[in-house]
Amino acid sequence: MADALSHIDANGTADMVDVGGKAETERVAVAEGSVFMKPETLELIRSGNAKKGDVIGTARIAGIMAAKNTASLIPLCHPLMLTKVGVAITERDDGAGLRVEATVRLSGRTGVEMEALTAVSIACLTIYDMAKAADKGMEIGETRLLSKSGGKSGDWSRAASTGET
Amino acid sequence: MADALSHIDANGTADMVDVGGKAETERVAVAEGSVFMKPETLELIRSGNAKKGDVIGTARIAGIMAAKNTASLIPLCHPLMLTKVGVAITERDDGAGLRVEATVRLSGRTGVEMEALTAVSIACLTIYDMAKAADKGMEIGETRLLSKSGGKSGDWSRAASTGET
Amino acid sequence: MADALSHIDANGTADMVDVGGKAETERVAVAEGSVFMKPETLELIRSGNAKKGDVIGTARIAGIMAAKNTASLIPLCHPLMLTKVGVAITERDDGAGLRVEATVRLSGRTGVEMEALTAVSIACLTIYDMAKAADKGMEIGETRLLSKSGGKSGDWSRAASTGET
Amino acid sequence: MADALSHIDANGTADMVDVGGKAETERVAVAEGSVFMKPETLELIRSGNAKKGDVIGTARIAGIMAAKNTASLIPLCHPLMLTKVGVAITERDDGAGLRVEATVRLSGRTGVEMEALTAVSIACLTIYDMAKAADKGMEIGETRLLSKSGGKSGDWSRAASTGET
Amino acid sequence: MADALSHIDANGTADMVDVGGKAETERVAVAEGSVFMKPETLELIRSGNAKKGDVIGTARIAGIMAAKNTASLIPLCHPLMLTKVGVAITERDDGAGLRVEATVRLSGRTGVEMEALTAVSIACLTIYDMAKAADKGMEIGETRLLSKSGGKSGDWSRAASTGET
Amino acid sequence: MADALSHIDANGTADMVDVGGKAETERVAVAEGSVFMKPETLELIRSGNAKKGDVIGTARIAGIMAAKNTASLIPLCHPLMLTKVGVAITERDDGAGLRVEATVRLSGRTGVEMEALTAVSIACLTIYDMAKAADKGMEIGETRLLSKSGGKSGDWSRAASTGET
Repeated sequence: MADALSHIDANGTADMVDVGGKAETERVAVAEGSVFMKPETLELIRSGNAKKGDVIGTARIAGIMAAKNTASLIPLCHPLMLTKVGVAITERDDGAGLRVEATVRLSGRTGVEMEALTAVSIACLTIYDMAKAADKGMEIGETRLLSKSGGKSGDWSRAASTGET
Repeated sequence: MADALSHIDANGTADMVDVGGKAETERVAVAEGSVFMKPETLELIRSGNAKKGDVIGTARIAGIMAAKNTASLIPLCHPLMLTKVGVAITERDDGAGLRVEATVRLSGRTGVEMEALTAVSIACLTIYDMAKAADKGMEIGETRLLSKSGGKSGDWSRAASTGET
Repeated sequence: MADALSHIDANGTADMVDVGGKAETERVAVAEGSVFMKPETLELIRSGNAKKGDVIGTARIAGIMAAKNTASLIPLCHPLMLTKVGVAITERDDGAGLRVEATVRLSGRTGVEMEALTAVSIACLTIYDMAKAADKGMEIGETRLLSKSGGKSGDWSRAASTGET
Repeated sequence: MADALSHIDANGTADMVDVGGKAETERVAVAEGSVFMKPETLELIRSGNAKKGDVIGTARIAGIMAAKNTASLIPLCHPLMLTKVGVAITERDDGAGLRVEATVRLSGRTGVEMEALTAVSIACLTIYDMAKAADKGMEIGETRLLSKSGGKSGDWSRAASTGET
Repeated sequence: MADALSHIDANGTADMVDVGGKAETERVAVAEGSVFMKPETLELIRSGNAKKGDVIGTARIAGIMAAKNTASLIPLCHPLMLTKVGVAITERDDGAGLRVEATVRLSGRTGVEMEALTAVSIACLTIYDMAKAADKGMEIGETRLLSKSGGKSGDWSRAASTGET
Repeated sequence: MADALSHIDANGTADMVDVGGKAETERVAVAEGSVFMKPETLELIRSGNAKKGDVIGTARIAGIMAAKNTASLIPLCHPLMLTKVGVAITERDDGAGLRVEATVRLSGRTGVEMEALTAVSIACLTIYDMAKAADKGMEIGETRLLSKSGGKSGDWSRAASTGET
């Protein structure tokens, strides 16, 4: 049944899925996203960052706090007691901007993909917010799940998935 | 000074910008974003939507509520009394997935770009959440400001900006 | 157009109404609700209250805090800077339980009926919560607007309205 | 001691009850409530709903999100990791308005009655909000627990309770 | 490694510590704080309190609610399902103001020191808020952990710690 | 009437004060607080900070976000659209720890003392949280208003006030 929309019940209305019968297992999800910007904007952040680190530091904190807030943002997400949230922000290898990667862990009954994606999204928005005076044209993209493990549906990785397709 | 990072103060540390001296003007911001997905995932949403409309309806509500929540998500955003938030979700012209567009209005002292971008981002995450049982490989992208008006820095549109560059 | 559903746009989808064009006027809304309970439950609260006042005091605080939180609870409500919230809790004249009355004031562009009704509802739920060990069968009812004033649609009162009908 | 007010400590002041010693059991609570309205208001919602389903869809989402938010609304409620929240909204058999029913599940140390009642209350308030332009005189009532199971105090149902009394 | 800053990772950036590998044990933390004020301010609260108890009652509720909200206030705190929060407010023995003591319990993987300290801080702020019309010069101080038990790092008490030092 | 407890109404119960009749004026409040710690703890933060700045950077962000959240933490505070929040964290002149100073501005009907004090308190708690693995005995104190201006009650400063007394 992996191809059904999990939140749509028999009558087609949206509901929080019942995870009460699921076993508690170790869950990990890793997600990424990027903020694409002009080279001079990146240079502004980089130089400011070299001195004080605040754009990146602020975005990391915003991402971590957002992960904990996921169930109040995404209507059908379950409230979860996350055991770890990590957010790393680095320059993209191609120099096109900044890349955000979030890792979320839980010992629980449901996956933490949404928590990782929410951390990435809010960190990217915070970068946008702090640099938008210099560059309103920045774009956020490539926001996606990289891997997940744990739970009945098993492990998944973008690399393997892409290979299959 | 349009090229400075507005939230970095003289000492390089992050602060909420003082907008107390700014005039209250009518502000509008429009932003967009897309969830790229496999054709069969789009078909699943479309058919479910034809019947009950819940994936799209839920994502719209999540986006609207998130816009109102922006100041508690993005560390240096000002709390604002938005006068209007609208979220529209449609299929992309190229059939690659769903496109979210948010319009936010305010009569106030600061722009509402972040509110529009936050609405878009959370609506996209909600779409991902509700369809992820069928397709973990979906990607969120092209999240960006389309236009803003009002305020001292004047009007801006992606079209004009791209044309200039 | 008083008979249209104000949050449904031309395409039938839900949106936050644009109040940007409305004038700022003084707004007041008064709402009420009751928790119906067994006489012995009321006596328990009354005697506890006579000594320390905590069931009623806690419910009042919960109601006041909830009024300020309305825009994050009710999807299409506007965020507002309430100038006053008052919650009064008294025994019903017929002895059937407790009656909650909330008064909310705002100098702004939209009415505060929902804030008053939300204060009443959460205060009633708090009373239920604090007394439910003694009486699970309590019922919350007669939650309704008593009056509103201010705004283009003018004044309204339940008494006058009932008289008309 | 079922007749004591559980949140009042030995000195009569309000406190969160210690549930640390309680066993984790499966908990279910079902609650209901109604929004009473004029036939023409119900017809407006019904016809709007037939087309797009947004009043009811929005109210359902608001109810689900509120259930997850219960511990931040009701002062002495424990934070809980709900495993399921479901909200159903239907027309009342007597045609007097809409009836909301919420079901909440948890594997935990304390009951979820308040979460079910909060979901019902906020869903009803959302219905009121979306239809109030047409009918300010609507009334919310019959908000009450239908049944609960799990926990040391055992099962309870309104039907059985009423029969006893 | 008790002397390392636990939230700083190998690269010196802040992260939520991974508590996934920690055992669930019974945790208790007790913290205190005081609001120092002029004798006549204390007398105002005392007399008001003798009649209705609202300054102290309101501050207690604010402290309890804040404890549940800790993970959304303190960036690197884990979300936790607290099993008990108690807040007691009494006059200081030296008559210099009010003393707040909070006790928080959890059966979980991480300590609850921050929850106890947050409850104390917000209760103190609430006392300040409610009495500030009479005395803006009040000072909050002596906010500190009194004891904690449970977890790998073992028990700690201020008394023993002070004795050691 | 400056010596009355402003939130206590005629019947002695707590209420949000009505500020609807107050004029909108420029308001500023400055507050301070300190985290007292062992010299080696301060050295740990200082050296970590020299490299990456994260303890102090994280605490500043937490303080700014908390100021915006004041009305949902302190029961009788009004929701406000702050125009500026600034938080500065420096070493105390006497070397006893870190000092936090918050400045909050508003063009509005009520003062922002509580917002400044809340920013200070949460920033101090965050410092405690991030350093507590090294030093559980830290103490938060000297949390107090330094000055306020604007509003009918006029300006106030601790220096002048102390001089008077």
